[in-house]
Amino acid sequence: MLFRGINSIKSKSCLRSPVTRDFRGLATVLQQEPSHPHVRTSVPGPKSKELFKDLNSMQQASSVQLFADYDKSMGNYFVDADGNVFLDAFTQISSVPIGYNHPQLLNVFKDEQNLKALVNRPALGVFPGLDWPQKLKNVLMSVAPAGLDNIATMMCGSCSNENAYKTVMMWYRTKQRGGKIDFTPEEISSCMLNQAPGSPNLSILSFEGSFHGRTFGALSSTRSKPIHKLDCPAFDWPVAPFPRYKYPLDQFQRENAQEDKRCLEQVADIIDKYEKKNNPVAGVIVEPIQSEGGDHEASPAFFQGLQKICQEKGSALIIDEVQTGCGPSGKMWCHEYFNLPSPPDVVTFSKKMLTGGFYFKSEFKPPHAYRVFNTWMGDPSKLILLEQVLKVIKQNNLIENANKTGQVLKNGLLKLEKEFPNLVNSVRGRGTFLSFNTSNTEVRDKILSNLRQNGVIGGGCGEMAIRLRPALVFQQKHAEIYLDILRKTLKEI
Amino acid sequence: MLFRGINSIKSKSCLRSPVTRDFRGLATVLQQEPSHPHVRTSVPGPKSKELFKDLNSMQQASSVQLFADYDKSMGNYFVDADGNVFLDAFTQISSVPIGYNHPQLLNVFKDEQNLKALVNRPALGVFPGLDWPQKLKNVLMSVAPAGLDNIATMMCGSCSNENAYKTVMMWYRTKQRGGKIDFTPEEISSCMLNQAPGSPNLSILSFEGSFHGRTFGALSSTRSKPIHKLDCPAFDWPVAPFPRYKYPLDQFQRENAQEDKRCLEQVADIIDKYEKKNNPVAGVIVEPIQSEGGDHEASPAFFQGLQKICQEKGSALIIDEVQTGCGPSGKMWCHEYFNLPSPPDVVTFSKKMLTGGFYFKSEFKPPHAYRVFNTWMGDPSKLILLEQVLKVIKQNNLIENANKTGQVLKNGLLKLEKEFPNLVNSVRGRGTFLSFNTSNTEVRDKILSNLRQNGVIGGGCGEMAIRLRPALVFQQKHAEIYLDILRKTLKEI
Repeated sequence: MLFRGINSIKSKSCLRSPVTRDFRGLATVLQQEPSHPHVRTSVPGPKSKELFKDLNSMQQASSVQLFADYDKSMGNYFVDADGNVFLDAFTQISSVPIGYNHPQLLNVFKDEQNLKALVNRPALGVFPGLDWPQKLKNVLMSVAPAGLDNIATMMCGSCSNENAYKTVMMWYRTKQRGGKIDFTPEEISSCMLNQAPGSPNLSILSFEGSFHGRTFGALSSTRSKPIHKLDCPAFDWPVAPFPRYKYPLDQFQRENAQEDKRCLEQVADIIDKYEKKNNPVAGVIVEPIQSEGGDHEASPAFFQGLQKICQEKGSALIIDEVQTGCGPSGKMWCHEYFNLPSPPDVVTFSKKMLTGGFYFKSEFKPPHAYRVFNTWMGDPSKLILLEQVLKVIKQNNLIENANKTGQVLKNGLLKLEKEFPNLVNSVRGRGTFLSFNTSNTEVRDKILSNLRQNGVIGGGCGEMAIRLRPALVFQQKHAEIYLDILRKTLKEI
Repeated sequence: MLFRGINSIKSKSCLRSPVTRDFRGLATVLQQEPSHPHVRTSVPGPKSKELFKDLNSMQQASSVQLFADYDKSMGNYFVDADGNVFLDAFTQISSVPIGYNHPQLLNVFKDEQNLKALVNRPALGVFPGLDWPQKLKNVLMSVAPAGLDNIATMMCGSCSNENAYKTVMMWYRTKQRGGKIDFTPEEISSCMLNQAPGSPNLSILSFEGSFHGRTFGALSSTRSKPIHKLDCPAFDWPVAPFPRYKYPLDQFQRENAQEDKRCLEQVADIIDKYEKKNNPVAGVIVEPIQSEGGDHEASPAFFQGLQKICQEKGSALIIDEVQTGCGPSGKMWCHEYFNLPSPPDVVTFSKKMLTGGFYFKSEFKPPHAYRVFNTWMGDPSKLILLEQVLKVIKQNNLIENANKTGQVLKNGLLKLEKEFPNLVNSVRGRGTFLSFNTSNTEVRDKILSNLRQNGVIGGGCGEMAIRLRPALVFQQKHAEIYLDILRKTLKEI
């Protein structure tokens, strides 16, 4: 029965309805969700088109693909305004951790104390709730990357990176002052004019193809696509090449190791160059897998080499796990794959973590108050939700599930690569955090559009890649449906 | 009975308890809240101190004043971890619109559909819910400043300003291209290197004493205090003087008008200067009342003159209503006081609005998708809360209340100014958005500390000012308590 989940939800909208009481976690979600996609209109359908006009009259809405019915969406299935049912392999730009309408999330705010935390949003930097330190420990610190025992909460990926940069810059300047935390009168007066030495020349090195956000600091380090950057002033910050591997990896080991070496040499050279031009590199930011820029991966050896360079040059290493974090790679944090000899200095997160923020080493704790600060400093209600998400992940071994499902997906994609060599190549990734290249942008967009018409929401990235970003509750059966529909779609192209 | 509110809440923590059902909006809040402050320990008390140690072991927590008991806080009263009860005249840096634990907010997520909107957070720029356009209309557009018929939702004040700057810069560059929306190959390639013409020299003019946030773009326009800016690179953006009036206003009309003129002349000169040095001013950002920087106000004539200059020079006028917006000034938007001949180009908001965002004129709609964009683009659950806040404001005439209560407060402050001329001067502001200067920073901090010990949470701003930022449910009786305790405190100094 195709719509059993959706129909049963539809009829139960009041609080103490059976649908709420009957939920028993993941098993129930998987039982309640539709058995497969069902598209009844051309996509986008008439209702989505009508709503688009409405929204576009109030804002630039051209990026909108579909209007959703979140009341009816369930588990891995996204239902749109026209009643079309899609298997969701993009999950709100990779930001839905355990699927739609998970009962443990729906139940959270039936607890009066959680509800009050939601309604009475504090200025966390001034008047945190009495349970806040414990909440940070129980939730965020319980999954902290090894060696990072400090935490700052933020609201989104961009502001997490922006504040990570500031943290790193304060650390760097304190080092330059020989550990002194006082400022000179010249620094104090010049910063008010946006001039050095108070507003110093300091840079963040990022990589070609990287994406770190769209606010001015984050944007100065984003290097994925011109459309993000055009017309916006940017800091003179350096960019280095990120490895571009040949696939399959096991056939190009020598070439790819050479590629690592080429990129690392340039990183070292550029840091020296910016030191000489008096705009030193306070920090290097890198994604474990470049996501928005095209799902470019790099080897553990590359990241080990990068950390070594950072340590030699005195630059902080910031790992941006905004998209890779919270399990989809098959580890909680994707950088765990790299076996770094020592922890990275800062790890930023958002998306599946529901709250933004960053972990950092104690030595990066800013020496003064009010410098990494804003009114809200995060949102306790998101931590309350994350607490449940982490419970569900643990109870259901969802990180292991990402590995298992990912293996099914990867094997399937490798088969399709053989079957459609002109359309699919360079299958890559870890866990369910997978992708493949198509032949060019036009073909990629056509595949995505047909996929959607056939019942699967997928995401593009880079110039010609398709990325898989399912929720952590994506099972082998969903992988098989995804692969079947992808195969059907590739045949149509 | 002092603790009637708090005790009755404490004993009722389950969902369908009388406390929930008995609520009848504002009247009930005012009945349930304590009758006056009650401080039983030295402040901060032992529990707050203990929790501080805990939090400070994980992050730089020196800005924390008190740990709160949000379960027990009610209406205008903030209860801390030690059971101390304070009248709250700062309200989480001015971000609590209708007091703590308002029943209409506590009830919102008992509606299953609202709960689902909370749990299934969409990427609003790609897959908004089918009710989203209507929600924008019913909630945000229902209070849009006249003439601004476009809206972008964001997450906080800083990112609202950052994205307002980007919007204004895209508009400015499109003008420079003679309305063409295509980019040259040189623009496309240069922006990827953070270089002009793709990443052009464009600036935002702000004012001495202004506060617009702490991310790198916002921070480049913030000019209130060195501590926000030190060690962070900043753009070469211009700063102009903001009027510094003599008080009482009616005795210094000529001098203050001269001050307006002096500042406006400099604005015009600086815009010309930056045009000549090839870093044109795309936009001017200004607070209706400079808040964090010291509650400096300016006359309607100043703002009218500023708009005229912006129009003549071709720069956009951005009004930052992050702190002034949503009623505390005695109007929904403080800039309504200025009788501007035409609407400002962009108005940004956050704090009491619970969601960040900005209103803008149609001509500022970015010509392409994905340029004012991020993963979440706001948060529907905050709009659902704001919808109730706006209802409560309307039902209870809370904007009119801000005027009435504000008048009581202002009259009282003016009396205290006469009684304590060495401690209180320059009483100023609109509605309950009021402030006064003390004699210096040390005295100001001492007053705030004693105020707190005497049962009132207040906020400082600028070098020596104390700002009043009560919730919109602050009544005449609260004003009287505030004034009594302030008087007692001033006597102690």
